[in-house]
Parts: sequence; C-alpha cells; structure tokens
Amino acid sequence: MTLHTWQLQAQKGKAILDNSIPKQWLIPVDQLPAADQLNVEDFPRKSGLFSAEELRITEMSASALLAEMGAGKLTAEEVVVAFLKRAVLGHQLLNFATEFMAERAISRAKQLDEHYKQTGKLVGPLHGVPISVKEHIGIKGLTCNTGYVAWVDQIATEDALLLQLLEKAGAVFHVRTNQPQSLMHLCCSNNITGTTLNPYNRNLTPGGSSGGEGASMGFKCAPLGIGTDIGGSIRCPAAFCGAYGFRPSSLRNPMNGLKSAASGQESIKAVVGPLASQSIEDLELFQSAVIDQEPWETETSLVPLPWKRVTPTKDITIAIMWDDGCVRPHPPMTRGLKHAKARLEAAGIKVVDWEPYRHDHGWEIISTLYYPDAALVQYQAIAKSGEPILPLSQWAFSYGRARGLSIAENWEFNKMREAFRDEYRALMNERGVDFILSPSFNGVAAVLGESHYWNYTAIWNVLDLPSVVFPTGLVQDAALDPVEESAFQARGEAEAREWAKYSAGADRYHGAPISLQLAGRRYHDEETLAAAKLLVGIIKTDG
Amino acid sequence: MTLHTWQLQAQKGKAILDNSIPKQWLIPVDQLPAADQLNVEDFPRKSGLFSAEELRITEMSASALLAEMGAGKLTAEEVVVAFLKRAVLGHQLLNFATEFMAERAISRAKQLDEHYKQTGKLVGPLHGVPISVKEHIGIKGLTCNTGYVAWVDQIATEDALLLQLLEKAGAVFHVRTNQPQSLMHLCCSNNITGTTLNPYNRNLTPGGSSGGEGASMGFKCAPLGIGTDIGGSIRCPAAFCGAYGFRPSSLRNPMNGLKSAASGQESIKAVVGPLASQSIEDLELFQSAVIDQEPWETETSLVPLPWKRVTPTKDITIAIMWDDGCVRPHPPMTRGLKHAKARLEAAGIKVVDWEPYRHDHGWEIISTLYYPDAALVQYQAIAKSGEPILPLSQWAFSYGRARGLSIAENWEFNKMREAFRDEYRALMNERGVDFILSPSFNGVAAVLGESHYWNYTAIWNVLDLPSVVFPTGLVQDAALDPVEESAFQARGEAEAREWAKYSAGADRYHGAPISLQLAGRRYHDEETLAAAKLLVGIIKTDG
Repeated sequence: MTLHTWQLQAQKGKAILDNSIPKQWLIPVDQLPAADQLNVEDFPRKSGLFSAEELRITEMSASALLAEMGAGKLTAEEVVVAFLKRAVLGHQLLNFATEFMAERAISRAKQLDEHYKQTGKLVGPLHGVPISVKEHIGIKGLTCNTGYVAWVDQIATEDALLLQLLEKAGAVFHVRTNQPQSLMHLCCSNNITGTTLNPYNRNLTPGGSSGGEGASMGFKCAPLGIGTDIGGSIRCPAAFCGAYGFRPSSLRNPMNGLKSAASGQESIKAVVGPLASQSIEDLELFQSAVIDQEPWETETSLVPLPWKRVTPTKDITIAIMWDDGCVRPHPPMTRGLKHAKARLEAAGIKVVDWEPYRHDHGWEIISTLYYPDAALVQYQAIAKSGEPILPLSQWAFSYGRARGLSIAENWEFNKMREAFRDEYRALMNERGVDFILSPSFNGVAAVLGESHYWNYTAIWNVLDLPSVVFPTGLVQDAALDPVEESAFQARGEAEAREWAKYSAGADRYHGAPISLQLAGRRYHDEETLAAAKLLVGIIKTDG
Repeated sequence: MTLHTWQLQAQKGKAILDNSIPKQWLIPVDQLPAADQLNVEDFPRKSGLFSAEELRITEMSASALLAEMGAGKLTAEEVVVAFLKRAVLGHQLLNFATEFMAERAISRAKQLDEHYKQTGKLVGPLHGVPISVKEHIGIKGLTCNTGYVAWVDQIATEDALLLQLLEKAGAVFHVRTNQPQSLMHLCCSNNITGTTLNPYNRNLTPGGSSGGEGASMGFKCAPLGIGTDIGGSIRCPAAFCGAYGFRPSSLRNPMNGLKSAASGQESIKAVVGPLASQSIEDLELFQSAVIDQEPWETETSLVPLPWKRVTPTKDITIAIMWDDGCVRPHPPMTRGLKHAKARLEAAGIKVVDWEPYRHDHGWEIISTLYYPDAALVQYQAIAKSGEPILPLSQWAFSYGRARGLSIAENWEFNKMREAFRDEYRALMNERGVDFILSPSFNGVAAVLGESHYWNYTAIWNVLDLPSVVFPTGLVQDAALDPVEESAFQARGEAEAREWAKYSAGADRYHGAPISLQLAGRRYHDEETLAAAKLLVGIIKTDG
C-alpha cells in the first residue's frame, strides 16, 4: 500500500502531536469510557482518576486560581500539572489538541513559582494561568499549519503579539488546539489531526473553527483559551461546549502573528479573543490583561482605547431576538430564551422583543465578503498538498460568488456593509435598546458534519458588534424540547434544511448545553461583558 | 460650431456657478489687477475696495471672530457678508469657487444673530464662522459632481454628516470650492469650472485636490475650510497658499455623504479635515467642535476617541527630515527647515535629524493601492460624459499598475502597508522621536500643471499619521534660493525631473510661501496639533 504525498505530509503534523503528548498522564484504553459513550464531560469526576485537589483546581476559574496563588495556597506548577493531566485525558476522549507543550509549561510555571517565592508577588494579572491556544496563533519555533496539510512544515518565527502580552502578564501556554481545514467550518475536522468531538455528546461537534478550544473549555483543560472569530468561530465552540466565549470589536486585540490563507482581507475583519470554562469575569480578566499593555504601540492598526472598568448595572434594556427572520431556532433555544426572559423580568430588568433588521441582507454581505476571490487562496492552500477538500470546506466556499468579485464590486459591498452597520446602530438607538439577547446558534451543538448555518453569530461580525456567549445551565432534553412538526412552513431552503435536522430526532442532541448570546454596541466591549456578567448571575441555573 | 455633448453637460455645471455669484459684489474688470499680475494676495488691502472693518474681519481667526461675536461686538451677518465680498473678489482673481451660497448663508447668519439677541449666547463653538467647503462634500439639494462632467446632474440627497455637525456647532457655509477631475491631482483643474490659481503667484497652482480650499484660505475668503486628503490633498493646498491644513488620522472625522468614484476603497483611507487661513488654534477648534459631538454614534466606523485637550509642551523631541531619500527638496524648502531648526534650538527644543525609512517602499504601496482596479472607476466616470482626460489625471492614474491587482494581491499590499506602519512606529519609539518635521512638498507651490511628486505628504497617508502644515512666514526668493547646479547627481528619474523644474528658473516660483509639515504618531492628532501650535509660535516670522 502506498500513501499519497499529502498523507506523508499530514503524518508529519500528526507525529508532532503524538510526540508531544506527555505519556505519563495517558490513561490506558481499557480505563476509558466506551467509544459509544456520548457524554464524557463528567468522566474526570466519575472515573476516580483524579485526586480531589486536581478536580478542585481544574474546576476553578482563573480569578479563583490567581487568588490562591497570590495567597500562596497553590503553586503555578501544581496548577499547570493538574490542567495538563486533565488535558491529556480530554485529548484521548475528544481529540482536541494539535500539540502539547508540557515541558515548557511546567518549566515556565516553576519560574513563576520562584518569582513568587522571592518577591511574594505575582508577576502579573495572569500569573500561572494555563491557557490553551488555537493552532494558527503562531508560537516561535513551532509548526503553524492553520489546518492545511501543505503548511505543516511552516514554522513560526516569533510568538504572536497576543501571546507575548499574555506571557508578560504571567500566562502559561500548555496545549495547542485543533481547527478545521480552511478555518471556515463551524465544525472541527482537518486532514492532519482529524476531528474533534463535543464533550457533552460525542456525536456532536464542539463547533468551529475554534473547535479544539471549545472542547478544551468544555472538558476544563484550561480555565482560559484563545480562539478567533470571523463568523462565530469563538462563540459557537464556547456555546456548543457549555463555556463562555467573547468576540471583541475588531481592532482591539492584536492579530500580528496569526496565520490565515486570507490574511490581508480587511472587508470582514477576523478577531482573536478569549474563551473561558468558568466565568465571564475570566473573559474580562483576559481582555484587561491584554489591553492594559497598550498593544497599539506595537500593532498600530489597533484603536488606542484603554480597557475601561465597567460595573454592571440593572438600568439597561435587553431586547430578545427570538428568531432572526430567516431560520427559526430549534425548540431548546426557544426554551432557553423563555427561561432567560422570565428570570430577567423577575429580577426587574427591562426586557423587550427585538425585531431583526435585514439579517438576510447581512448574510449576503458577509458571505460574499468572505470570498471576494472566490476562495482562491483557500483552494490554493488545499491544492498545494493535494489533500482532499472536506465537505464543510466546500460548503463554506459555496457561500461565496462563483466568480468572486471585481475590486470595484468589493468596494460596493464595503459600502453596503457600512450602511448596514449605521442603520443597525440607528435602530438600536431609536428603540432604546442597549443589548440584544439571542440564541448563539439556531440550535444547540450541531451533529458532526452538519454545521451549515451560522448567521446567528455572523450577523454580529458583519455589524462588528462585541458579543459574548454563555451557558444557561439548561441542556437539551427530548422530553422538554420535543420535535414540533405541526404547521411549520419554512421561509426558505436554509430554514427547511435546518428544521429538518431537529425533526430527524430530538434525541440526536441529547445533553447538549443551551447557550445564549449577548451583543452590544460597537466598541462597547466592556459594557457588553459587564452586562453579560449580570445576566449570567440571573439566568444561569444549576439544572 | 457645435458643442460636444460633454461640453453641454459641463456648461450646466458652469452655469450653476455663474448663477450663484452674488452680483452686488462683483468688481468691474477694469478695477481688477491685470491678468499678468502674479501676486494678488494683497490686492484686497491695496485696492481700496474694502473698508477697514471688512479687512479687519476677514483677516481675523475664527477664534477671534467668535470672541467678538460672543461679546456682541460683531454680528454673524457682518462677518459672513465681509467674507462673501472677499470671496467674490477671490473668485474673480483665482477661479476657486464652484458655487456660492450667499442667500442661505446670510439668512443663516441672521438666525444666529437672532438667537444671540434673544439668549445672549452663541449657539455653539462655531457660531457664525464662515466655512468654505470642497465641492464633493455633499450638500442637500445641490449638485455634487466631484469634478466629473458626467456627475453634474447628481444632486445630494442630504448634507454630509460632517456638515450637519458643523452646522449644529454654528458654522455658516457660504461657498463651495473647486477640485480637479478625479480628485487625484495636486493641482486644481477640471472640465466644468476650469483651473484655480494660487493667490501668491498666478503662474502657480494652489495645489490639489482641495485646491479651491487652498485659494480660499490664501485669499482669506473664510477663516476655515474643509478639504479631503488621500495623499496630500489638504496639506499641499494649505502649504502652497501660505495657510494651515490638518490631515487627521483616519476614522476620526465623519466621511458619510462625501462623494468619490472610489468610495468603498479602504486600503488607503481618504480623510476629511480642516484648513485655516490664520492659525493652528482654528484647526483645533474645528476638530473639537466635530468630535465633541461623538460622530461615531451615527457613523459607526469611526473610532470613539474623544477629542482630548492637550497643552503644548517644550519637552518634546522633533526630528527634522531634510530629504525623503528619493527626491531632494528645492532650495527654499531647505532654507525653511534651516530657519526652523535654528529657531527651535534657540527656544530650547530638542532637535535631531530624521533618517527616512523606506519612503520609496511607502510610495510603492500607496500608489499601487490608489488604483487596485487600474483606475477603472475613475476612467469610467470620465468616459461616461466623453470629457477629455486631463494630463494630470492621466499622470496620476499611471502610478497604478496597468492591469490593476487581483483581490489576493490587494491583500498582500494591505499586509505590506500594516508591516510598514508597525516598523515606522517602532523606529519612532526606538529613536525617541515624538514628531517629524519635514517639507510639505519637494518645493514651494508647483507651476500650474507640474505637480508630479507628492510623497512628502503621501508618506503620512500610507502610514496614517496625523500631519499638519503651516507657513514659516518666509517666501521663495531667487536671491536667497538660487538654483544649485553643481555636482547634483539625481538618484532616479523622479528626482531628476523635479530638480530640473527648479533649475529651469528660480524666478518661476517667486513669492510662493515656504511651508513645513509636522507629523505625529497615529491617533495622536491632539498632540500633533498642540506641538504644531508651539512650533508656529517659535518658527513663524513676519518676513
């Protein structure tokens, strides 16, 4: 049997992963759950493989870990080792990593502990906090393949600026995480390290493109992670995996040193941002640690807006968008919104309905502007190795115009985008709405390979609004969220397709977290996170 | 004799101008200077056509006018009438207007006076300040032709956002000003209203593309004017005409309602900004009046940076760039810089030399990104009417690549631009330089039709640095600035061409103002204007 050239190349990437796994924490296969066990999220607790202290550490927020490290109750080494151990198990169950960095992480943690021992102080606001990192965020001396087989040999020549800043703040990077071919699936499959699974239901995707991060957060392999988002790629993985994820406004977090086939494309700006396994506070912690370092002094395209400290206030108006006017959400999402509405009203917060404004138009703009070159750069990156094009890559590219855009047409779409942004803002002002609460996706986590519609998140990309997802604490349940067949008239092909997925069986989505999304005004990142913190306190339930 | 269709169309635009001229202030031709009199800048004072009060008013800054209007010593009507009278004469001598708006300006001034009479207060920070406006900045109900014959019939449906804000602040718009075909000359000629001249020497251009504004400022037809700048189009006209001009960082002043063939082009962002006939303070006044109104609430692409009040400080380092490494400045510019250096050092300000960093590379980026479509949109706008393409349009378009760029190539240039910006900033930080002082052009005002090189200004566009030009008070003088022939070895075609223009006769530039330019860090607009205010106080001489 002969392997294709691309397969040999892909094996190199897989070997990097395999060689990096710290073997001491690998669990023998016979102690792992059966392959057909869907929910593995609670396996660490049920398996008996972790000490009480390891479980306690890995289920703490970054803020709580910092408090204990600052008080000398925990060392950075203990912390990173606990998360590494959990991450190795997570990888065995979910295939979420592309490369472990155990030795350097432990060595770095030891340095931090030494600093603390000598000075009695933490080095910075993220001292000893383990952070998982999406693979296409460059790390000096390591591969940066961005999900393309052809790029496996491409080695980053320096750390991404964001990582430099986080490291100065004390962060410890212990594992790099998986992403789909082309970065353009809301799913997480590539021809190098394969497919990542959802910890709540292994028939489901952890989302994408930061799918490895979604799994990392859902399985608590780190309190914080870093993803990127041009249509939902931070928020969907966080939402699908019951975690927290924040898409900042563009031009706030530094992008230098991130790799993408379409870099230089500026009509729809990709952003990098945090995911957190435990809390909105941790997202704020991440943002302030980065922006307090004034990254615009180095990456001059960033806007020099300091990170404001905003106290949550109940004096806000939340508008609930029940439906985006194009694709009706599946029953559990509507249940989640009803739950939220009841709790918010009971807490005395003003809640109104949000009539969506031309979300189909927004989708036309963003889906066209993803690929003004008819996805040529992505096709070329795939073709370079000869690797097969994956179905969801093909699906994503098909959203672009077959012949692409001329330069002048690209400019016309830029103008449409700006007009749409201004109109949407005017509408929020006119309606007196501070934040829009909506489903994070048209359903809970999609079945593997079935992430086809993402305008519940992409709408905030085309509008460039800061948006954050969070779990309600509710999970999908066929008894509570039965299939609704009667009298449903799809408004179009997309809605018919998406609704049919749920009609095919509510049990397909069993146990998936029900997550919601909050969007605020452009550059009101701080206010949006503060409001989300308030909302989570009110909405989130323990069962 | 038959006129071409385009000529009939052009005549419509010319008729709009002619019909708008307030006839009561037209000076009989026999009282005007002879057509071959080059300097007409001092004609208002020497002619006896203006009262002492009219001269006093029209030679005051906006700030000074506001003080007198606020104290009830002047009415807005007196002010606008004096400037209108001066503007009509200016137009007769320089052909700088495209449309007068005398009636509405006077009516508006009367309303302001009524408000003051009733309340004892000014309506806002620009109460009664006449402002001239470049033609392609839309005014509701009026033509907006942008220098294209084909667009003469295009009527703006609303006022540009910037004008709405200025009007709220109390400004009075009394005259619209000329621009070149395509907006891409540093000169000011089109096939509708013709060619605008420089008040200091009518063989010279007032610069462009905001050439009408340059003439308006130089002849004191308004204390403030509004231009636009994508390569020097505010700064060159201000510099050529002995006035002040400010190019803000991009995304600070609102662009909605400005017309351009290439709108939607975002790789090199055009900006709109003020010119002033009297002072840097007036530029600050304009900026604060606009940005204090938070234009980002309406035009959401703007960055929400409030306008800071910055006090000038002598604790700064000024680096002088004597030469951009590509095209050596003409002798008067070097004399201007030497004068500045001596005065700054005498005033105790730290002055160092600035070694330019790859300005040729900067020019390659910006000149390519002006026309990624091979100037197709401009060619089409010209071709639509069949008007002749002017030599400087052809010249400007020839800077683009003949076949344009593919979408992916455009992205590559975007990346080059970002890298160049970051490298340049790093260099300023590394060298401890706060501001760069340089010539505003490779010479004083160009001879009509000879504006061919503009990288002394465009470099700050590609880098997106705020930059301001101001007069030194010196003027070109063949005796002081003789032709230097000996041992000059041009570094390339552009330098040979530009140097030959001066060698052809120093007397060609007689009496043209010697202006300098100060650039600061991106988004440090306030600090840059504050520093320029300090510098003008030190450098500017009365002769």
